[in-house]
Amino acid sequence: MFIKVGRKIARMGELLERRRRLFKGAAFSSALFFSGGSEGAGFSYFAGCDVDGACLVLKKGRGELFTHEMNYAEAKEDCPYPVRLFGKNPWKALKKACGGGKVGFSPSSMSAARYLALKKKAKLRLVDAGEKIAKVRGSKSGSEMQKIASSARVAKKILAGLDPWKSRTEAELASRLKMLSLREGCETAFEPIVATGKNSSRPHHKPGRTRLGDFVLVDFGVKKEGYCSDFTRCYLRRKGMEEEKEYEKCRSVYRDLLRALPDCKNGRDVCALSEKLMKKHGLPALIHAIGHGVGMEVHEPPHFGKKSRDSLSGAVLAIEPAAYFKRFGVRYEGMVAHRNGKWKSL
Amino acid sequence: MFIKVGRKIARMGELLERRRRLFKGAAFSSALFFSGGSEGAGFSYFAGCDVDGACLVLKKGRGELFTHEMNYAEAKEDCPYPVRLFGKNPWKALKKACGGGKVGFSPSSMSAARYLALKKKAKLRLVDAGEKIAKVRGSKSGSEMQKIASSARVAKKILAGLDPWKSRTEAELASRLKMLSLREGCETAFEPIVATGKNSSRPHHKPGRTRLGDFVLVDFGVKKEGYCSDFTRCYLRRKGMEEEKEYEKCRSVYRDLLRALPDCKNGRDVCALSEKLMKKHGLPALIHAIGHGVGMEVHEPPHFGKKSRDSLSGAVLAIEPAAYFKRFGVRYEGMVAHRNGKWKSL
Repeated sequence: MFIKVGRKIARMGELLERRRRLFKGAAFSSALFFSGGSEGAGFSYFAGCDVDGACLVLKKGRGELFTHEMNYAEAKEDCPYPVRLFGKNPWKALKKACGGGKVGFSPSSMSAARYLALKKKAKLRLVDAGEKIAKVRGSKSGSEMQKIASSARVAKKILAGLDPWKSRTEAELASRLKMLSLREGCETAFEPIVATGKNSSRPHHKPGRTRLGDFVLVDFGVKKEGYCSDFTRCYLRRKGMEEEKEYEKCRSVYRDLLRALPDCKNGRDVCALSEKLMKKHGLPALIHAIGHGVGMEVHEPPHFGKKSRDSLSGAVLAIEPAAYFKRFGVRYEGMVAHRNGKWKSL
Repeated sequence: MFIKVGRKIARMGELLERRRRLFKGAAFSSALFFSGGSEGAGFSYFAGCDVDGACLVLKKGRGELFTHEMNYAEAKEDCPYPVRLFGKNPWKALKKACGGGKVGFSPSSMSAARYLALKKKAKLRLVDAGEKIAKVRGSKSGSEMQKIASSARVAKKILAGLDPWKSRTEAELASRLKMLSLREGCETAFEPIVATGKNSSRPHHKPGRTRLGDFVLVDFGVKKEGYCSDFTRCYLRRKGMEEEKEYEKCRSVYRDLLRALPDCKNGRDVCALSEKLMKKHGLPALIHAIGHGVGMEVHEPPHFGKKSRDSLSGAVLAIEPAAYFKRFGVRYEGMVAHRNGKWKSL
């Protein structure tokens, strides 16, 4: 096994560019990113490293990383920004680092406990920077594109070589997908969805003890060097099944959508386009979004809601036309990247 | 491979008991638990299932689970509580279900975005129920104890049979631990810590490309049927190393601490006891807590801070005396459970 581990996630030049884009026209003079858990991806993106128990304070002209003594040495080694100790009063330290202005944060990835403490104990003037952060992260750099493409290659290779029926049950196949990912030096990007027969009629079915039948839906991706991939394939053991016909319709929607993507400017354009194409190919209306952005997280901006104005410029997308019936469900999912004004399949 | 998958996590009788304990003397008349991400463990604990995109509303006398159409069928099958659809206005639905009184929630596991939406859109009178929830979850039932014991058995078996030097690097050994867990039908409960030589002087070292030397620290646990385990072992390739002496001191602290545990009532008692024992055995003061509760999450109450009043009654603990020096660090970690007034090693 060869494991590629990149503790240093991005170079300083790229970090400066990310910071520049974050503060361009921003309504805040500083921004906070905490490491770990649901906040971890934003932290890693802007801090260029992955340090436990840390907080990155960004301002237009500079950045500082705060952490506790326990993680100080590791932070010094891994973080391109200057590293400080929280000291006895972390709230005071953060208040001082942020200065008096408005402080941007991402409400969807910060815990309510931390939000309340920052307001009450650090007395920060917090403002919602979620949309701005999403916009910066949504447009990928060249090196990010390369990492996502590499992650996509591994996932596609595993799915292409997969004989589902070498496993007995859904859960066993899900476990095998995890092993195959580890053998490639990766992790699974999310809990694989393996659904056979009637179970496939549920988009988010959790793999269980059901024995694999003639039809198996697999939704799977890996995380490589911090970046995710996300694909769905349906496997049919014999020809002429009803599932095959509907699956082919999904693939047609996918192909048509890719062709028309250059005419889409934002999330709602893609949403409207998908509605049209589902109808054209005789499929029922989707009960979930036609897709989502992919990056350090498997679900990230741009979003494809009916009202989404998320830009597609520089985006990496997973597109997943699907149809769910009483007896079964089908889904086809692939990835595309917008680079230098053109869309490219991954 | 045999995978044991329990989608139904707890029986109704146990759920009613958990709900009863939650509302006993509570300062709130209803409580909210959302599924997924950092909120997932609390949801699963009280809902007895694991449904995507769902919210459990508990009141003293009843409970309801809300979800979207996409997950409705699965929820109906898995959840012992009545299942409702969010409908067009989820905030309104939740407001109605909660009624007019105070609504308990866990600030540390809810996102700030959700907290703000519940306040502004659903106009709920939210109150911090974190401590109450932690207290309920901190005291384990018989069936929880059994699941944790089973999880501990698997982790100990893997660690006991481990020859670290069959792997070349830290990252390769971490990957092997994941494979071994999958072969046992489990997941790793957290990213395994594998640290060799100088790297072991960092408590939270991230496994990298460093080649394994004569001394290897492994901090590892599995998640089985939803419950975690957490152990640390040090592996020494030859006798008479300096590391061995310090490691033995950690084991002595561990043994002494277990013996004195019956005299401890709460978290700060254990903290004070550990300080005394570290000194007695000639070890430097700890730079992290002496341990933590273990359950559906690998770190959960009781906490062992200097001011912690968290009760130890019915608790499952990981105890981890450690010492970090310039050239290396050592740590020994084992698990104990408090059942029927007695402490038992897992």
